Amino acid sequence: MRKVKVGLIGLGTVGSGVVEIFARHREEFRRHAGVDVELTRFCDRDTARASALGLADSTFTDDYTTIVNDPEIEVVIELIGGTGIARTVVLESLRAGKSVVTANKALLASFGEEVMETAHEKGVDILFEAAVGGGIPIISPLKHVLVANEITKVMGIVNGTTNYMLTRMAEDGLDYATALSEAQAKGFAEADPTADVDGLDAAAKISILASIAFNSRVVMSQVPAEGIRSITPADIEYADQMGYTVKLLAIARRVDGCIDIRVHPTLIRSSHPLASVGGVYNAIYVVGDSVGETMFFGEGAGSLPAASAVVGDVIEAARHLQSGCLGLIGCTCTDSLRVRDIGELETAFYIRLRVADEPGVLAATASVFAEHGVSLASVIQKLAEGGEAELVYVTHDAAESAVQAALAKIGANEDVHEVGTVLRVEEL
Amino acid sequence: MRKVKVGLIGLGTVGSGVVEIFARHREEFRRHAGVDVELTRFCDRDTARASALGLADSTFTDDYTTIVNDPEIEVVIELIGGTGIARTVVLESLRAGKSVVTANKALLASFGEEVMETAHEKGVDILFEAAVGGGIPIISPLKHVLVANEITKVMGIVNGTTNYMLTRMAEDGLDYATALSEAQAKGFAEADPTADVDGLDAAAKISILASIAFNSRVVMSQVPAEGIRSITPADIEYADQMGYTVKLLAIARRVDGCIDIRVHPTLIRSSHPLASVGGVYNAIYVVGDSVGETMFFGEGAGSLPAASAVVGDVIEAARHLQSGCLGLIGCTCTDSLRVRDIGELETAFYIRLRVADEPGVLAATASVFAEHGVSLASVIQKLAEGGEAELVYVTHDAAESAVQAALAKIGANEDVHEVGTVLRVEEL
Repeated sequence: MRKVKVGLIGLGTVGSGVVEIFARHREEFRRHAGVDVELTRFCDRDTARASALGLADSTFTDDYTTIVNDPEIEVVIELIGGTGIARTVVLESLRAGKSVVTANKALLASFGEEVMETAHEKGVDILFEAAVGGGIPIISPLKHVLVANEITKVMGIVNGTTNYMLTRMAEDGLDYATALSEAQAKGFAEADPTADVDGLDAAAKISILASIAFNSRVVMSQVPAEGIRSITPADIEYADQMGYTVKLLAIARRVDGCIDIRVHPTLIRSSHPLASVGGVYNAIYVVGDSVGETMFFGEGAGSLPAASAVVGDVIEAARHLQSGCLGLIGCTCTDSLRVRDIGELETAFYIRLRVADEPGVLAATASVFAEHGVSLASVIQKLAEGGEAELVYVTHDAAESAVQAALAKIGANEDVHEVGTVLRVEEL
Repeated sequence: MRKVKVGLIGLGTVGSGVVEIFARHREEFRRHAGVDVELTRFCDRDTARASALGLADSTFTDDYTTIVNDPEIEVVIELIGGTGIARTVVLESLRAGKSVVTANKALLASFGEEVMETAHEKGVDILFEAAVGGGIPIISPLKHVLVANEITKVMGIVNGTTNYMLTRMAEDGLDYATALSEAQAKGFAEADPTADVDGLDAAAKISILASIAFNSRVVMSQVPAEGIRSITPADIEYADQMGYTVKLLAIARRVDGCIDIRVHPTLIRSSHPLASVGGVYNAIYVVGDSVGETMFFGEGAGSLPAASAVVGDVIEAARHLQSGCLGLIGCTCTDSLRVRDIGELETAFYIRLRVADEPGVLAATASVFAEHGVSLASVIQKLAEGGEAELVYVTHDAAESAVQAALAKIGANEDVHEVGTVLRVEEL
């Protein structure tokens, strides 16, 4: 057993988890996995972090090039995040012939091709299980166990912050602002929650999953993302009455040789495996032509869960180094499927209208949908305050353009006071 | 890319799925996975199966030694099942220096050590993802992504037949016999359902999972198994009223440096991720010290789901052959943890009594539990027919021996007409 020396760059939440796991289990890695991996150097801009973790001064540097240029280090863990210095660190490490383990979803979602190609040229490993779903095994299962499948769909709850908020809104009727404050107070949401609540974090993750599942590169800028700011407790309640749960879903489908990919709040049948995934948990649902439906569930964030995936990758890289099979699986984006525009989407819709409590409004609005070829699956009418009623429709699959045209005409009806929330419905 | 020739022995349900997947996707395996795998020889005792699958006569044999002795074949797929001829086929193939892919849970659960050691001696792969959970990735995640964890618990619904029956009993109030007949009519249960309904199939599977998760060999004969024959719709209904769902669970825990392992019908909180897994679906719930809770869900049986896992393993073996890293992960049973006797178990219990509808029976029975140090968590009393009542207790964690002693004394009370179903409760 030869020792594999590892450099760790980035001592934040996940980095400190990695240090903790090595401290706890390094001996077991030798005995159980047959690899002798050692964290030999640590880097962070913030010197205080090293001492907080009890790391020896001699092993710490605030200059990442010390690690990239260390000839003894064979594996670099990049946990800086983002597409700035992290990109440089990853590319320079690969070019120096080191394998890289990273949790950096943003980097892979925007510069995946560059990173994968560089690793391929140098014949080293680039592993990133922690980039999606924290500790949940999903990248490796897609590249290994499920590889015999044509994957037709990958759909997931990949953002714990918004799932926590929607769960609280559903269970206790909190409004969006209160749910956000509570998530921030508990440390589940950042002070600036944009990346989470506007679906950008989920968009990065689904672009990575889709690239692997469909063997065709999708970059984050190709993923339309809509967040949860417009969701009200009333929508969640109406959805529930109709048998649906509201989740922020990241959805990627193979449709007619193209890729349909998007992130948006979605009504999903309450009996669907994803519907009961609550709180900060994540889950990724995968459908393959042979395996059928599968789902992978767990903690999608947090120091130790993400570090679990990072260290798993480090051990994998060490096994490959030891067995002389570095780069065992490289880039799998061998096809070039077209990414469809969201305007091409046909899906079912949930539509909430505030209308005058007058006879004939339901008939009038329903007939506008019919005129536009939008067929209705269910409707709820409920008295609101001040002589108003709420009308909630769920349509069958319809073209987005037809629904928008119908809503424009409905909005012009003077008895319709507001076209409220419009949400997509998955697997009606 | 060099061609890897594969021999397939056993053309039953899973074997025909393997043939179908290769027919559908062999070209994609070259493009996406970078391996050129070809099924070159097929073997079954039943010659008719080959023609039913449209296989050329020249590729078919009813003598497995033709495949084991074929020097061109590098990977043998064993899908005969059982521990008779299948054991010989697997061992002879390994000894001939071929990698083996198998779905044979019985073989691995009883002769795992022999099989793993033979593969290790010859430096070849033995892969068996399909042995547990059909197409669900679980063996590979335990050996790869989750390898940095100390796994504390593996618990699953690993038998689709009994899960289908319990789901039908819960949803439509069917009794055991009716649920079984229905499962048989739908092809979900065998004519002789013993292996499924008595928990033996689940016992084989949990012994494999525990061996990997705890790095310590557990053989099937060490797993106490209790099936679902005694479960009534009334038990399921009482459990539901108390917030529990009845599932046949295969449970393995790491407790005080020992392994607690068993299969039995179990009450589990209806909010637990396993509780909502219905019908023929399987799910395996894994807890690790870093990753926390994870769950793997999907179709646990059936031709194509199991074949999906088999072909995934074949592609993995081909990658290893091509990269020269055969036997990348061998046997991981490096420790020797003691397997505890079920008598050492402390758990919560569900106990149903049929009693005389007289004052004082509840007090009398409750006080017997108290005398034996068995603390009660909840109770339901319900009038039955003929001047009888039903008393349903759920206890806190208690020693099995204390509960049995209390029940012996309670059974001797003349107002207690029957000590009915006694079930264990997991995660009270």
